[in-house]
Amino acid sequence: MLSFASDYTEGAHPQVLRRLVETNMEQLPGYCTDHYCISAMEKIRAACQCPEADVYLLTGGTQTNAIVIDTMLDSCEGVVCAATGHVNIHEAGAIEHSGHKVLPLPEHQGKLDAEELRGWLADFYQDENHEHMVFPGMVYLSHPTEYGTLYTREELAQISSVCADYRIPLYIDGARLGYGLASRETDLTLPDIAGLCDAFYIGGTKVGALCGEAVVFPRMNAPARFMTKIKQRGALLAKGRLLGVQFDALFTDNLYLEISKNAIEMAELMKKGLRERNYPFHLESPTNQQFVVLENRQMERLKEMVDFSFWEKAGPGHTVVRFAASWATTREQVEALMKALDQTSTQFGETCQG
Amino acid sequence: MLSFASDYTEGAHPQVLRRLVETNMEQLPGYCTDHYCISAMEKIRAACQCPEADVYLLTGGTQTNAIVIDTMLDSCEGVVCAATGHVNIHEAGAIEHSGHKVLPLPEHQGKLDAEELRGWLADFYQDENHEHMVFPGMVYLSHPTEYGTLYTREELAQISSVCADYRIPLYIDGARLGYGLASRETDLTLPDIAGLCDAFYIGGTKVGALCGEAVVFPRMNAPARFMTKIKQRGALLAKGRLLGVQFDALFTDNLYLEISKNAIEMAELMKKGLRERNYPFHLESPTNQQFVVLENRQMERLKEMVDFSFWEKAGPGHTVVRFAASWATTREQVEALMKALDQTSTQFGETCQG
Amino acid sequence: MLSFASDYTEGAHPQVLRRLVETNMEQLPGYCTDHYCISAMEKIRAACQCPEADVYLLTGGTQTNAIVIDTMLDSCEGVVCAATGHVNIHEAGAIEHSGHKVLPLPEHQGKLDAEELRGWLADFYQDENHEHMVFPGMVYLSHPTEYGTLYTREELAQISSVCADYRIPLYIDGARLGYGLASRETDLTLPDIAGLCDAFYIGGTKVGALCGEAVVFPRMNAPARFMTKIKQRGALLAKGRLLGVQFDALFTDNLYLEISKNAIEMAELMKKGLRERNYPFHLESPTNQQFVVLENRQMERLKEMVDFSFWEKAGPGHTVVRFAASWATTREQVEALMKALDQTSTQFGETCQG
Amino acid sequence: MLSFASDYTEGAHPQVLRRLVETNMEQLPGYCTDHYCISAMEKIRAACQCPEADVYLLTGGTQTNAIVIDTMLDSCEGVVCAATGHVNIHEAGAIEHSGHKVLPLPEHQGKLDAEELRGWLADFYQDENHEHMVFPGMVYLSHPTEYGTLYTREELAQISSVCADYRIPLYIDGARLGYGLASRETDLTLPDIAGLCDAFYIGGTKVGALCGEAVVFPRMNAPARFMTKIKQRGALLAKGRLLGVQFDALFTDNLYLEISKNAIEMAELMKKGLRERNYPFHLESPTNQQFVVLENRQMERLKEMVDFSFWEKAGPGHTVVRFAASWATTREQVEALMKALDQTSTQFGETCQG
Repeated sequence: MLSFASDYTEGAHPQVLRRLVETNMEQLPGYCTDHYCISAMEKIRAACQCPEADVYLLTGGTQTNAIVIDTMLDSCEGVVCAATGHVNIHEAGAIEHSGHKVLPLPEHQGKLDAEELRGWLADFYQDENHEHMVFPGMVYLSHPTEYGTLYTREELAQISSVCADYRIPLYIDGARLGYGLASRETDLTLPDIAGLCDAFYIGGTKVGALCGEAVVFPRMNAPARFMTKIKQRGALLAKGRLLGVQFDALFTDNLYLEISKNAIEMAELMKKGLRERNYPFHLESPTNQQFVVLENRQMERLKEMVDFSFWEKAGPGHTVVRFAASWATTREQVEALMKALDQTSTQFGETCQG
Repeated sequence: MLSFASDYTEGAHPQVLRRLVETNMEQLPGYCTDHYCISAMEKIRAACQCPEADVYLLTGGTQTNAIVIDTMLDSCEGVVCAATGHVNIHEAGAIEHSGHKVLPLPEHQGKLDAEELRGWLADFYQDENHEHMVFPGMVYLSHPTEYGTLYTREELAQISSVCADYRIPLYIDGARLGYGLASRETDLTLPDIAGLCDAFYIGGTKVGALCGEAVVFPRMNAPARFMTKIKQRGALLAKGRLLGVQFDALFTDNLYLEISKNAIEMAELMKKGLRERNYPFHLESPTNQQFVVLENRQMERLKEMVDFSFWEKAGPGHTVVRFAASWATTREQVEALMKALDQTSTQFGETCQG
Repeated sequence: MLSFASDYTEGAHPQVLRRLVETNMEQLPGYCTDHYCISAMEKIRAACQCPEADVYLLTGGTQTNAIVIDTMLDSCEGVVCAATGHVNIHEAGAIEHSGHKVLPLPEHQGKLDAEELRGWLADFYQDENHEHMVFPGMVYLSHPTEYGTLYTREELAQISSVCADYRIPLYIDGARLGYGLASRETDLTLPDIAGLCDAFYIGGTKVGALCGEAVVFPRMNAPARFMTKIKQRGALLAKGRLLGVQFDALFTDNLYLEISKNAIEMAELMKKGLRERNYPFHLESPTNQQFVVLENRQMERLKEMVDFSFWEKAGPGHTVVRFAASWATTREQVEALMKALDQTSTQFGETCQG
Repeated sequence: MLSFASDYTEGAHPQVLRRLVETNMEQLPGYCTDHYCISAMEKIRAACQCPEADVYLLTGGTQTNAIVIDTMLDSCEGVVCAATGHVNIHEAGAIEHSGHKVLPLPEHQGKLDAEELRGWLADFYQDENHEHMVFPGMVYLSHPTEYGTLYTREELAQISSVCADYRIPLYIDGARLGYGLASRETDLTLPDIAGLCDAFYIGGTKVGALCGEAVVFPRMNAPARFMTKIKQRGALLAKGRLLGVQFDALFTDNLYLEISKNAIEMAELMKKGLRERNYPFHLESPTNQQFVVLENRQMERLKEMVDFSFWEKAGPGHTVVRFAASWATTREQVEALMKALDQTSTQFGETCQG
């Protein structure tokens, strides 16, 4: 069945898979010490224009968030994020499992606001009881956000500046970072991000890899003995090559950005088709995820033809759904989606536009 | 200086202290196995009309909340509470430190609403992604709440019924339980509470003891090996007698309720005086804590004469403050407070009433 | 360079890799719900003769041990193992990180002794202070052990019986299970193991996969909400297919056992060669890992030609080293190892045999 | 019944209790900010000759060990101790509950040996796999040890020097510190201890207080935000005065040392009596705990007349038992113990001397 359910429905990008096949029978040392891992780290440093960055390769996003946050926070500190942040809602309490509170602030299309953040931090320290409360120890944001939205360079710089004023690190969840960097509506580059935050990860799983996320500490600021801490948290792959070969391929000949562009183009095509059909958008997303309001009866019929994601209820009789494009999405698939929408919309002579 | 800062500003009620002195040189076994602990537990069972209850004696409120919640929850479960719940705000993240998320719902003068709770639980299980989220594993409420408000018998029964429907335990933080039971505006008794919840504690620290909270599991439903778990969490007193003797005294001749009544009477007196002077109340509290709005300049002047608690800002130029009465508060102290209010109010010819 | 450093130096077995390539562009749902995962689980159930087993796919061994042990233990319980157990020494404290003590017993060539275990458990419960101690909540053993040794069916049955008497689960770390099952000197089958223990895992990483361990709870006895707990611990792969396709391939046409046999044959060849050259064995291993004592000067020379593992010091001037064979080891590689041993042994006219 | 079961069988020393009574009705702020706490801290600094020490007051020994160790260790570090260390055996896994492994070394009458410690640390860092292992992050010792034995100044200086060489803190559990300082056979003073270690606690519970342990960080080296971390771990008393008043009394007019001397004198008397009766000692203890071997039948008879502690089996038919003296033990009680020994020994014409 046609699927726009997520950006992790396929395996690896063919070029990534090819390199796994080509290198398969080489005998390599374990635990991310092999030359593919080292080469991948070097290429990531170059792409970030951070020659001294510490780079580590982990397996998945929740794992990466939990480990980075736990090892950068002191035990009495929590992590500040938008209320819709992945760490607050959809990681099954991984952050709390590591002992830290998630401190949610209001979200604006998935984004944090720098001035609200500054105000909240000021209020915290002015509260006479704050020594009986969880200290804000880090700011977490996702780019793109869970709603596909993006921070501008200026917005990120402002948040970074608030963090600097309060001496707390800024960490960016880049599970879909490629799609953010490839968006036509962004002015943020990878070196910008590396310059403005204290830690971030470059998502592989959703952008061409079978698995894998590359954590970057731009200024040699990885937590002490980070490798042992990764091991202790069950996240150190014996065959680290699986991650090294993939990221080495993704950061060769700009592959990571190039394949991300396809997702953006297909999302633009999807948007155009949805607009032409007058489907209301839940919000304006400049990346690979599109959030549209469907009438519930159409949604039910569409489910039989296409996989997509339930997002949230949208008032009586309507639902927000998500269609996600990826590096693998084809023009034909987008056209088939439009056809399916048309078929389900008119099948019983109804209109779907709320 | 005159203090209405809290209900823990004095030591122990004289009768409690007297028993500590009288029993001091008896040689007793440790770890809450002595005959005073056993007697205290028996008297608490009787007061709760729960002859089979498991009763344990702990030292403080945050400790008690953290241990009860952690040991009753499964690792992937969190605790639902009102957003203003003590466990959510003022325990320095003790619950998250034990690995569990606090799941805040809207508060209504510090209280949870049964129907909102039911709706939230229904939504949770209908969310297709709920297996990637923290499961609600317990409902926590405080009685009196952090705002001094009380649940009616009917309100508590409704919440208890929601919990039963979802098969999650109901736990009541009774740090100030005595003051709730002694209020003139309550219809909830100790046996009611024991009948409607799965665990609760009877606060000693704020109601006549030097330290100590008595946890009650009304239906022999203490977590397995609870004593060892208390020890493992650093909360098992070697000289458990310190807790046993105090609770034995507090539950002899109805002392716990009798001394609580004094706090209520003094709070009523305070309320009357404040009303006569037209100070606006932040909310209507039927227990020992009163929340009043002061004009900031008066507040500053009053600080020099009386200790009280900053609560929160109340719009431009005004602040919510708390005056707390306790078993030890005297009529003379309340009168002195009124006099101090009058002096600070009129000192510069200003009126304080917002 | 020639490597006998470990059994994870290559990528995936070619047949496993082929299936990853063939299925790469299928659109599949995430989180181990795709049909390859389901097929793999079904085949594993069949191989274990446990039609009702709960099967879960995880990424690595330390991760698997930490999650299974933490979720099966109560918070005041620890895990009993041989002092040389992987969980006690080489997992960077992953078990303690999850809050549980590792309770080491004496090891006998890496193995636990059933009678010693029984005696230790009896002593624990007879100790009058045991409520102030960590309760034994599980027995952990590895098969093959960290020393390549194996339990007989009778030995495992005895340990299983002790566990049953004390009502604590028996868990088997099968990181190298294939090599244990394929050994010529074992009478233990996969169904035997499934019948005698409460949880175990079938190691993929060291036996033909790029990554992946299959956890089996033979009697539908997985911990409640195990999937959410996996997610919470950062171990739920978005592209679960990576694990599903690999285990589906490994359990098709008996591939897992067939490729394990190669490791055993090559280890036998290695053993024969070492014996002919009179190298002393540290112990008698019937599986793919061989532990030999080398004179230190020879060891240093050999390091320049072959990768192998330092194991431990063996008295003055000598060292125990490990040579590991795997599914990928060839006859030519073993012959090259022997040649390298001969060259380093005679290069300066020395004899290496201690 | 006569009890030599422990040094926590009575309540508080009368002078300590008197101060609690005298100060009971003062209104004081909470959380160890009152003037008694501040005075107690100042007196402890003076007694330690550490004017800049950070001093904190906690409730019990296991709590203190768990909090100090957890907050001083990095997450991948464990604590090194003698195998008989309290943290390794009798704290129900409190250290592991906080995420850290206990790393036991051989014990010598309850003591660590500096050279063994140095050798073990050297071996750890030479092990090529040590990045996959728990790092030693602190050395823990108890003084007096669990066996009542004492470190000499020279022995402690040597251990301190090893710790300095490896840059890991030295922490001393002083649950019975008073009895160690008051021993006739020690050359270690409180200022010596403060100078040689990085953290230690002065035990109150077993030396005259109802509860309470005073943690000292001699060089202003308390972990950041230690008060919030205490709160987060459920160990911050609302009525901190309970601890402050007690320690203020104990460190007024040298009371802590003076009352400790009584325990030593009574233990000496006990020792003399036991020697005269030819009871074999399990080891030579210069402090308040005496370990003696009893023939099992005598032990059973003695149990009916005296409370004492089972320690461990001592070969066929014999048991090591502990008799503990305290600040409260009287000459009459020791004489009664001797009489009870004589009566049980000769009752049936048997001799008890193994």
